Amino acid sequence: MTARVEIVPVHGIGEVRPGDEIADLVAAAATDQGTPVLDRDCLVVTQKIVSKAEGRLVPLDHEDRSARHALIEAESRRIVRRRGDLVISETHHGFVCANAGIDLSNVEAGQAALLPVDPDSSAHHIRNALRARHGVDVAVVVSDTFGRPWRLGLTDVAIGVAGIAAIVDLRGSADALGRVLQVTEVAVADEIAGAAELVMGKAAGVPVAIVRGLDPTWFGAGAARDLVRNPQDDLFR
Amino acid sequence: MTARVEIVPVHGIGEVRPGDEIADLVAAAATDQGTPVLDRDCLVVTQKIVSKAEGRLVPLDHEDRSARHALIEAESRRIVRRRGDLVISETHHGFVCANAGIDLSNVEAGQAALLPVDPDSSAHHIRNALRARHGVDVAVVVSDTFGRPWRLGLTDVAIGVAGIAAIVDLRGSADALGRVLQVTEVAVADEIAGAAELVMGKAAGVPVAIVRGLDPTWFGAGAARDLVRNPQDDLFR
Repeated sequence: MTARVEIVPVHGIGEVRPGDEIADLVAAAATDQGTPVLDRDCLVVTQKIVSKAEGRLVPLDHEDRSARHALIEAESRRIVRRRGDLVISETHHGFVCANAGIDLSNVEAGQAALLPVDPDSSAHHIRNALRARHGVDVAVVVSDTFGRPWRLGLTDVAIGVAGIAAIVDLRGSADALGRVLQVTEVAVADEIAGAAELVMGKAAGVPVAIVRGLDPTWFGAGAARDLVRNPQDDLFR
Repeated sequence: MTARVEIVPVHGIGEVRPGDEIADLVAAAATDQGTPVLDRDCLVVTQKIVSKAEGRLVPLDHEDRSARHALIEAESRRIVRRRGDLVISETHHGFVCANAGIDLSNVEAGQAALLPVDPDSSAHHIRNALRARHGVDVAVVVSDTFGRPWRLGLTDVAIGVAGIAAIVDLRGSADALGRVLQVTEVAVADEIAGAAELVMGKAAGVPVAIVRGLDPTWFGAGAARDLVRNPQDDLFR
C-alpha cells in the first residue's frame, strides 16, 4: 500500500542573498513553523533562491531589449524558436525553455537571475549541508517554471536533483492484470516539482516546500540531467 | 498562508466494468479505507477506469501492427511524427500524445482502451454524481500519462477537468517585491494530475487519488480543453 504524500510549504525564508546557506534557512524556517525537516523528506527549492544564494545575479536594464537578448544568447547553446520578444532556447545544461531561464521577476530592478551553473550540484550542496549541519538525510529537487509545446500553461519541473531518482523505470513491472507494462518511465522529479508548486504560488513568497511520504525505493542516485533527451532520440527537434 | 496539500491514494476500487458508476466506487472505497471524500477535495481519476466505465473498449489483436495503426489513425485528427512503431498524433480532442492515447496495458488481451469521447464531460459526470448521490462537492481531474518533447520520462497530465480551473492566471499579481509578474499562467490541473501519480504508481493498481488542501480560489469553472494550445499560437508545431 502506498502511503499518502504531504506537501508542506515552508514560510518565512525571506530574501535570500549571495552566500546564504539555503540548508540553514530551510531548516530554521521549517522548525519555526512546527514542521521540522525529517529524514526521507524531499525538499523542493525554487531556482530563484538557489541562483541568488549562488550569486548568479547579473546587472541588466530590464527595458533594454538588445541587452536582454545578448544575455539570453550567452546563456544558450542553441536558439530553438523566436517570435517577437519570446525566445525559446536550449541552455548549456540542455534544458529547453523561454529566455534561457533568465528571470527578471522577484529580483531587484537592474538585475537578472541566471540559472545555476550546475543545478544538480546545487541540489547536492543543499542535501549535503542538511546532512552535515542539521543531521537529516533528505532528497533535494531544484525547480523552475517552464512552458511546453502543445499544452498551455506553465508547470514547475526539476532542473536539479540529488538523493532521489529523476526517472523511475517501471518497465517490466507487471500491470494489475499480471502482464508486462509497455512504457512506464515516469519523470517523478518533474511530478514532485509540480506538486510542490501547488503550495507555493507565484506571488506567495514561498520558495521551498517539503514533499513527505514518497516511495522509499525512489531515494538514491539521481540527476536532472537524466531528464534531458538526447537530441538524436528526440522526435521533436 | 497556503495550507498544506495531501495526496491520498484510494485503494480497493478493483476492476472497473462498462456501466460502473465511478463516483460510487470512489466514495465507497475512500470511506472503507477511512478517508471519506470531503467537500473541496479534488479527485484525480485515471483515464483507464473512465474509459472502461464508459465502455470505450474495442477489440484489438495487440500483435497486429496494421490494425493498431489503423485504430490510432481513426482516433487522430493529425499524425505529428512517426518513428518505427511509435506514432505521435493529435487526437480529436487536440491532445498530442503517443498512439492517440490508446492503451493496451491493464486491459484484457484482445482489447484496447480508447480515450473518453469527451473527458471534460466525463469529469463533470463524476463530479455531478458525487454531489447528487453522495452529497460532496468535489473537483475532478481525469488524468493520463503522456510523454513530452525535450524531456525524458512520462508525466501524468489532465485530459478532463470539472469544478476547478485548469489554468490559474496569476498575471498581474504582485511578486514578493511588489512588482507585476510577467508570465504566470500555471497549469495547475496538470500539476494536480502529476502529484496524484506520485501515490498511484503504474503497477500498484491505484486508479484514483484524493488531492486535499488546494487553494480554494481555484475551485469553479474549468476544462482540460483550456490546456490545448491553439495551433496558430504554438511555436512548436
